[in-house]
Amino acid sequence: MAITGLSYIAGQWLGNQEGKTFQSFCPGTNEQLPTTFYDATDAQLEQAAAAAQTAFKPYRNSSYQQRAEFLNTIAEEIMNLGDTLIETTMQETNLPRQRLEGERMRTVAQLRAFATALEQNLAPLNLSYVDDADANRTPMPKPRTELTYLPVGVVAVFGASNFPYAFSTLGGDTAAALAAGCPVIVKTHNAHPATSELMTQAIDSAIKKCDMPMGVFSMLQAKAYSISHQLVAHPVVKAVGFTGSFNVANALIETINTREEPIPFYGELGSINPQLIFKNKATQDGKTLAQQLVASMLMGNGQFCTSPGVWFVPSEQTEFEQAAIDAVKAAGSDTLLTPGILKSFISAIAGFEGSEGVTRLAKGQLDKPYHADAHLYACDVDTFLANDHLQEEVFGPCALIVRYDSDASLAKVVDALAGQLSASVHGTAQELTAQAGIISDLHYKVGRIALGQMPTGVEVCASMNHGGPFPSSTDVRSTSVGLQAMTRFLRPLCIQS
Amino acid sequence: MAITGLSYIAGQWLGNQEGKTFQSFCPGTNEQLPTTFYDATDAQLEQAAAAAQTAFKPYRNSSYQQRAEFLNTIAEEIMNLGDTLIETTMQETNLPRQRLEGERMRTVAQLRAFATALEQNLAPLNLSYVDDADANRTPMPKPRTELTYLPVGVVAVFGASNFPYAFSTLGGDTAAALAAGCPVIVKTHNAHPATSELMTQAIDSAIKKCDMPMGVFSMLQAKAYSISHQLVAHPVVKAVGFTGSFNVANALIETINTREEPIPFYGELGSINPQLIFKNKATQDGKTLAQQLVASMLMGNGQFCTSPGVWFVPSEQTEFEQAAIDAVKAAGSDTLLTPGILKSFISAIAGFEGSEGVTRLAKGQLDKPYHADAHLYACDVDTFLANDHLQEEVFGPCALIVRYDSDASLAKVVDALAGQLSASVHGTAQELTAQAGIISDLHYKVGRIALGQMPTGVEVCASMNHGGPFPSSTDVRSTSVGLQAMTRFLRPLCIQS
Repeated sequence: MAITGLSYIAGQWLGNQEGKTFQSFCPGTNEQLPTTFYDATDAQLEQAAAAAQTAFKPYRNSSYQQRAEFLNTIAEEIMNLGDTLIETTMQETNLPRQRLEGERMRTVAQLRAFATALEQNLAPLNLSYVDDADANRTPMPKPRTELTYLPVGVVAVFGASNFPYAFSTLGGDTAAALAAGCPVIVKTHNAHPATSELMTQAIDSAIKKCDMPMGVFSMLQAKAYSISHQLVAHPVVKAVGFTGSFNVANALIETINTREEPIPFYGELGSINPQLIFKNKATQDGKTLAQQLVASMLMGNGQFCTSPGVWFVPSEQTEFEQAAIDAVKAAGSDTLLTPGILKSFISAIAGFEGSEGVTRLAKGQLDKPYHADAHLYACDVDTFLANDHLQEEVFGPCALIVRYDSDASLAKVVDALAGQLSASVHGTAQELTAQAGIISDLHYKVGRIALGQMPTGVEVCASMNHGGPFPSSTDVRSTSVGLQAMTRFLRPLCIQS
Repeated sequence: MAITGLSYIAGQWLGNQEGKTFQSFCPGTNEQLPTTFYDATDAQLEQAAAAAQTAFKPYRNSSYQQRAEFLNTIAEEIMNLGDTLIETTMQETNLPRQRLEGERMRTVAQLRAFATALEQNLAPLNLSYVDDADANRTPMPKPRTELTYLPVGVVAVFGASNFPYAFSTLGGDTAAALAAGCPVIVKTHNAHPATSELMTQAIDSAIKKCDMPMGVFSMLQAKAYSISHQLVAHPVVKAVGFTGSFNVANALIETINTREEPIPFYGELGSINPQLIFKNKATQDGKTLAQQLVASMLMGNGQFCTSPGVWFVPSEQTEFEQAAIDAVKAAGSDTLLTPGILKSFISAIAGFEGSEGVTRLAKGQLDKPYHADAHLYACDVDTFLANDHLQEEVFGPCALIVRYDSDASLAKVVDALAGQLSASVHGTAQELTAQAGIISDLHYKVGRIALGQMPTGVEVCASMNHGGPFPSSTDVRSTSVGLQAMTRFLRPLCIQS
């Protein structure tokens, strides 16, 4: 399974050996990897788009059973990549084997969950609506109407750096779009191009085994941004799934806004995932809770989009903060996914250090100079509210404790929160009842609220929602995780008879 | 119930007597009406927006039962306006009494249908998803997750000229948004400002009777476009419902694109509502079908958004065309809703008359010089495909017969169709089976497909979809009619415990 560095255009591996090239980076050694990857050309994008459009008709007409087999075969082919996949991704991301094996399991489970939903005629999605005819209705007889759902067309998917399997080439958006009946064109994340190529080998085998139209999937490698913009501007593209940064999303939205036909842009951007901790809970379970929060914050070295970044903690407590300090101090350091992410992390930390009213409570060990070590800061509510940068996500191992001294102060800060992917509430049973007003207000700031649980760990099920009000997502109406993600790429049709 | 000409800002009737003013027009007499209306000012918009935002919290926290009572009371108060409402709208639109009484019934039924859905805890919307906890799952216990839906926030609604009740001040979008828990700011259509004022009196009474927060509804009168742009650009506005023309929608989208926070723009624009007529059907039922289609096309003098504008008819038939010609020739003329619509209609007809390959088959009687009379044209598939203007909606009493001479030719023209609100298929049972491929392709062009039925007459029920692919709508994901319209103004929240 040699890596060619080429893009995959409707069944063909293509590249331009005279065009732009790039290499991926090994965060574990802090060095570039030797393989050369070739930027896809405009002509290759056009070819992928035309093939996807041609594939749309036969693919949308495939039966749910055929699509289920296709998804299950993709899952199988991912597993067939064996340890080569894990080792390649370890090189490109320095994420540990166990984490990657777990993420592979999740990615495969995701594909299989959509397959099962298709086999069940989409029953778990609750999409069935029929109103019977009534010939005797006056003044006019009532027709029979049935609401069904159709795939929207070709979908563009942008891979994310932090989940090289679950939110990338064959991740949630691709699985949801293929399940819905939409051909997919993936623009890979150039932090893990070899991983993307291996994943593409897997789907290539599945396409052939299941006799699917070749244009149903294409994969574009590129370091230059221009191909991304051409992709979202392309008239055949009818929806975009994106996981990444606010700035890149905003640039893509600007391009989408120039289209004649508006299309949905499902961008999942960032979140501080606020943690509301009530007083009795902090007193009774402070130590355990602090240790859990530090562990949750350190998952993937702070690069989970649901990482708990800001914790609202009552001023009058001691055990909680001390336990958090101890846990952070004991934490070893690790790499971040790309040199760019490391640079942003260092800059965010410098911003915390230089902020009046912000105290550094603890710092982990820095094992290598190009690692990111854990940081824990604290400030009060007024400082938090007065400084925009404290309200923004730090992508990496950093958390901010915001001390509040009254319910009114907590209510005020909840009211001021921007949109978030998730939040957690930690309180005793009594506190959860007594604080129902604040908790209800928090509902309006998030896409998911976890009661007494860590925000990390997003279940793949029908009732999941992963997404949230702007700026955590660009479209609050749908989820990128769970069975409902299929509805991003479906639209209603009423059949009247 | 004197008409003041003022806007209604969170319970207060306000206007600027020194600012811009406008009068409405009486199409029946072709003269301006005497009442003066005052353009809402920027300050009044700001006041409405601030009040709506303040009202959002108490309103979203109102129980489903309270909201149901509110909607039912609005319906009751509309009926309490009595004949004054009907007579006022007759003056402003020249629509006949019977039609307006029917539309009022529909508008009231719409409000009551949402009320009933709320009383049933939204069961008819199928929005309930729960995944139970599983403490024994390995490697991690599974939490309980429940998907619920929250109102998105303040909604801006733009009234349409052609349905002064059902798609205007207290029409479908307003009813859906209020049912969802969203405060509403309506920019009225200036073709029926007095009607809008009366409707606002009705909701004002309902707000007071039900003790709702005053900011839950505001109504802005204005002839100038600037207030519309300021409304959709306002940060508190989280969604826009619009029914109107492509050009106005595009201008509003340009403004929305300048917002920091992207918001959904649900624009319903226009449609030619293609009619596919198969050969045996045309032979067996040609006369009846032609008469039904002419009657459907003439509803509201061709100003229904689901008016059948283009009919694909087999070349080899005679009875169908002759019956259509007879019906059009027998049709009397009537007014259009505004002088602007009349001007556009005359210009579109001139375009048909000057088009090579297009034949005028029939023309109705023109009773008054400022009326629009029925027109029926014919061309072949190639002419239709070669001329963009033949593929665009003519708002008024005009239909185009496109003669096809083979299945291949029909398939080609279906493939070339732009997105439409609806289409109908008229065939014998055998033809509907034999032509399944073409009919399936037609599904992908429309939001609703009526088998053997006229496209006019959109049922208000849970399985309705009114909307379609661009350019018939700007967002294909939702409907403006029926219970599902509520989901336009809802968004998911997952509660994990």
